[in-house]
Amino acid sequence: MSISSFYPPQRTLMGPGPSDVNPRVLAALARPTIGHLDPQFVAMMDEVKQMLQYAFQTESALTLPISAPGSSGMEACFVNLLEAGDKAIVCQNGVFGGRMKENVERCGATAIMVEDEWGKAVDVAKVEAAFAEHPDAKVLAFVHAETSTGAQSDAAALAAIAKKNNALSIMDCVTSLAGTPVKIDEWGIDAAYSGTQKCLSCVPGISPVTFSEAAQETIKNRKTPVQSWFLDMNLIMGYWGKNAKRAYHHTAPVNSLYAFHESLVLLQEEGLEAAWARHVEHHAALRAGLEAMGLSLVVDEADRLPQLNAVSLPEGIDEAAVRGRLLNEYQLEIGAGLGAMAGKIWRIGLMGHACNQKNVLFCLGSLDAVLTDMDAKINSGAAVKAALASYAA
Amino acid sequence: MSISSFYPPQRTLMGPGPSDVNPRVLAALARPTIGHLDPQFVAMMDEVKQMLQYAFQTESALTLPISAPGSSGMEACFVNLLEAGDKAIVCQNGVFGGRMKENVERCGATAIMVEDEWGKAVDVAKVEAAFAEHPDAKVLAFVHAETSTGAQSDAAALAAIAKKNNALSIMDCVTSLAGTPVKIDEWGIDAAYSGTQKCLSCVPGISPVTFSEAAQETIKNRKTPVQSWFLDMNLIMGYWGKNAKRAYHHTAPVNSLYAFHESLVLLQEEGLEAAWARHVEHHAALRAGLEAMGLSLVVDEADRLPQLNAVSLPEGIDEAAVRGRLLNEYQLEIGAGLGAMAGKIWRIGLMGHACNQKNVLFCLGSLDAVLTDMDAKINSGAAVKAALASYAA
Repeated sequence: MSISSFYPPQRTLMGPGPSDVNPRVLAALARPTIGHLDPQFVAMMDEVKQMLQYAFQTESALTLPISAPGSSGMEACFVNLLEAGDKAIVCQNGVFGGRMKENVERCGATAIMVEDEWGKAVDVAKVEAAFAEHPDAKVLAFVHAETSTGAQSDAAALAAIAKKNNALSIMDCVTSLAGTPVKIDEWGIDAAYSGTQKCLSCVPGISPVTFSEAAQETIKNRKTPVQSWFLDMNLIMGYWGKNAKRAYHHTAPVNSLYAFHESLVLLQEEGLEAAWARHVEHHAALRAGLEAMGLSLVVDEADRLPQLNAVSLPEGIDEAAVRGRLLNEYQLEIGAGLGAMAGKIWRIGLMGHACNQKNVLFCLGSLDAVLTDMDAKINSGAAVKAALASYAA
Repeated sequence: MSISSFYPPQRTLMGPGPSDVNPRVLAALARPTIGHLDPQFVAMMDEVKQMLQYAFQTESALTLPISAPGSSGMEACFVNLLEAGDKAIVCQNGVFGGRMKENVERCGATAIMVEDEWGKAVDVAKVEAAFAEHPDAKVLAFVHAETSTGAQSDAAALAAIAKKNNALSIMDCVTSLAGTPVKIDEWGIDAAYSGTQKCLSCVPGISPVTFSEAAQETIKNRKTPVQSWFLDMNLIMGYWGKNAKRAYHHTAPVNSLYAFHESLVLLQEEGLEAAWARHVEHHAALRAGLEAMGLSLVVDEADRLPQLNAVSLPEGIDEAAVRGRLLNEYQLEIGAGLGAMAGKIWRIGLMGHACNQKNVLFCLGSLDAVLTDMDAKINSGAAVKAALASYAA
C-alpha cells in the first residue's frame, strides 16, 4: 500500500451543493487549531451565535451550529421535539419531506403525510385539512426550499397554521438560508435547520439550527430523554447556551467553525437583502439563457427558487453524458435529478459564492457547447447573449 | 453589529485533544471543495477506507469515517447494535464509560455497570462475573484508553470474554488509535470508534468506525429500524460500502475528509509500529522530567497510556491558575481533570504530531518556570535535564 496526498481538481460547483466556497472561508479553515474550551474559541463561538441569529432573523438564544451535516440538523429538530406516541403532520413535495417522515417514525411518532406533486409548493389548504382531521398533531414539518426540485413553499402561511393549531413548526431551510428570505421570528417558526454548503458559501459538515422559546419549553419538559445523546439540546445548551458554563459535551469541529465564522462575516459584510437580490439577479440571467436555448424550468414561476434551478432536458438526450462532459471537459458540476426526478431534470445551483455573472455565462456557454456538439435540439449560440441582455435590462 | 474575521493564536496543544495538527493536514483541509459524488472524491474515499483499515488493523469492509465528532461514532456503535429490551455490560473507569451508559439507556436497553476506580484499568474478573450473572447480555462495551484518566485496559482479554459469552464487543479507542497498539481483527473487536483529533494529528469533527462481520449481521437482522437516520449503518453502507452505488445519504464533509486522508497518508509514511514507539519514547522523557520535578503520574505503570499523562498536583497549588498562565504566557494548552478528577489532576497529552522532543522539553520547561514562580514545592530546574537524559539513555 502506498497512497499519495490527494489534490482535488478545481471545479466550478453549480449543483445542489456543496457549492463554490469563498476563498476567504478556505483560508479560515486552515488556521491553527486551538482547544474547543480555549477562551478565544469560546469568544468566537459567541460571535458565531450572534451572526447566525442575524442570518436566521431571530433573537432566539438557542441558535447554534450542530457539529455535523444538515441531515443531523434535521434529526436534531425531530428527536428533540417529538416523543414516542406523538403525531406530526409532514408535508412532502420532494425528497426531503420523505426523509422527515423517516425521522418522525424513528422517534416512535406517527407521520401524517400531506403529499404534493414534486416541483410544486406545499398546498396550504391540504395542511389545514390535515389539522382538521388531526387536531392533536404536535408538530408540522415542511421543507421551505426543496433541494430536490427547486420549489419554494409559503413558510409564513404554514407556520401560522401550525400556531393556530397549537402545533410546533419545523422548517427545513437548508437551501434557502442566505439565498432567499428566511425570517424565523417574523414567521413564527419553532425549529429550523440549515446547511453551510449552500448559500452560506462554506464547506459542508455543519448544520445551523434555531429553536423558539416554545420549542425550548417543549424540550425542557419532555417526559423521556432525547433518544440521541449527541443531539440532545438539553446537553448542548450547557456548552452553547447563553449563561452556559461551557461544559464539555463533545469536541467541537474547531476548524470547520473557523470557516463558518468567516462565511457569516462575509454575509454580514454583504447584507442579507443584498444577498437575496444577488440571487434573484443571476437567476434571471440564467433563466433567460436557458429559455433562449429552448429549455424550460420545471417549477412554476411563483414558486421558483432563484438559487436552485430544475431544468427540463432536451428531447432524447443522455443527461448523464452531458453532466459527465461538463465535469470532465469544463470542470463544471451541475446536479442530476434525485428520487422521482432522477433522469428527468438537471439541477443548476446558483448558491452563495457560486452565484455570480461569470458562473452564469460560463455555465450557459459550456452547456450550449456540449449540447450542440451532441446534436441536441436547442437554439445553439443564443444562451449567453440572452443572459447578457438580462443583465443589461 | 460588526464582527471581524477570526485569527486564532498559535497554541501548542498538549491537552487531551484536540492536539497539534500536522501542517500538511491543515494544507489539505484548505484545498478546493469538490462535490461529494464527484468521481475523484469517491476514489479518495476508497483510499481513506483502505488506509483506515490499516490504522485499525482490520480487513473489515465496514470501516469508514462518520461525518461527525467521536461522540457521534460512539452513538453509531450503540444505536446500530442495540435494540429496546437488550442488555449491555458497560465497564466504567472514567468519564466515557458513563457516556456509554447514557447511550445504552437511550436505546431503550439496560446497562449492567461494571465499575472500577478512576485511573485503574477495567478489572477483567469483574467482567467475567457480570457475564456469569447476565449470560444474556448482547454487548460488552469498554473504553480502551480512558481520556479522562490516561488508563489503558486489556482490550484483547475483554473482547475474548465477550466472544466466549456470545456477546458483541464495542470498544472506545478515541485516544488509543495510532498512539498505542489497536488490533481490531487480532483481538476480535466487533465495533470500535475513534476520533481524528488525538493521535491521528487531524482536526476534530470526524469519527472513524469499524464493524466486524458479526456486527454487520446483527445490524442487517435488526427487528426495528436504527433510531438515528443519520447514523443508520444500513443506509451509510449504501454510500461507503464495498459494492455501494454511492447512493446519496448525506453531504459528506468534503474538506474535513481531505484532511483526514492526509493524516492517514502521514500515518502510512511513518508506519504504525514507529508511531507507537515514538509515543513510548517521548512519554518516558516526559515522565522522567515530571518525576525529577517531584510530581507523579496517577495511573499505575502497567496500565499507563504513553499519549495521555494524568499528573498529580503539587500540594496547595491553584491548578487552574497554572493552566491559565501556561496558556496566556506560553501559548501552551494542557488539560484539566474531568468529572471525578476535576481539580485533582492535570492531563498532559503527547498525541500524534504533538508527540515530539521539542514539545516535551517546552512543556517541562514552561511548567517548571510557572510552578517555581508560584512557589510550588517542586525541585526547580531538574525537569528538562532529566528528560534529556531519558532521550540519551
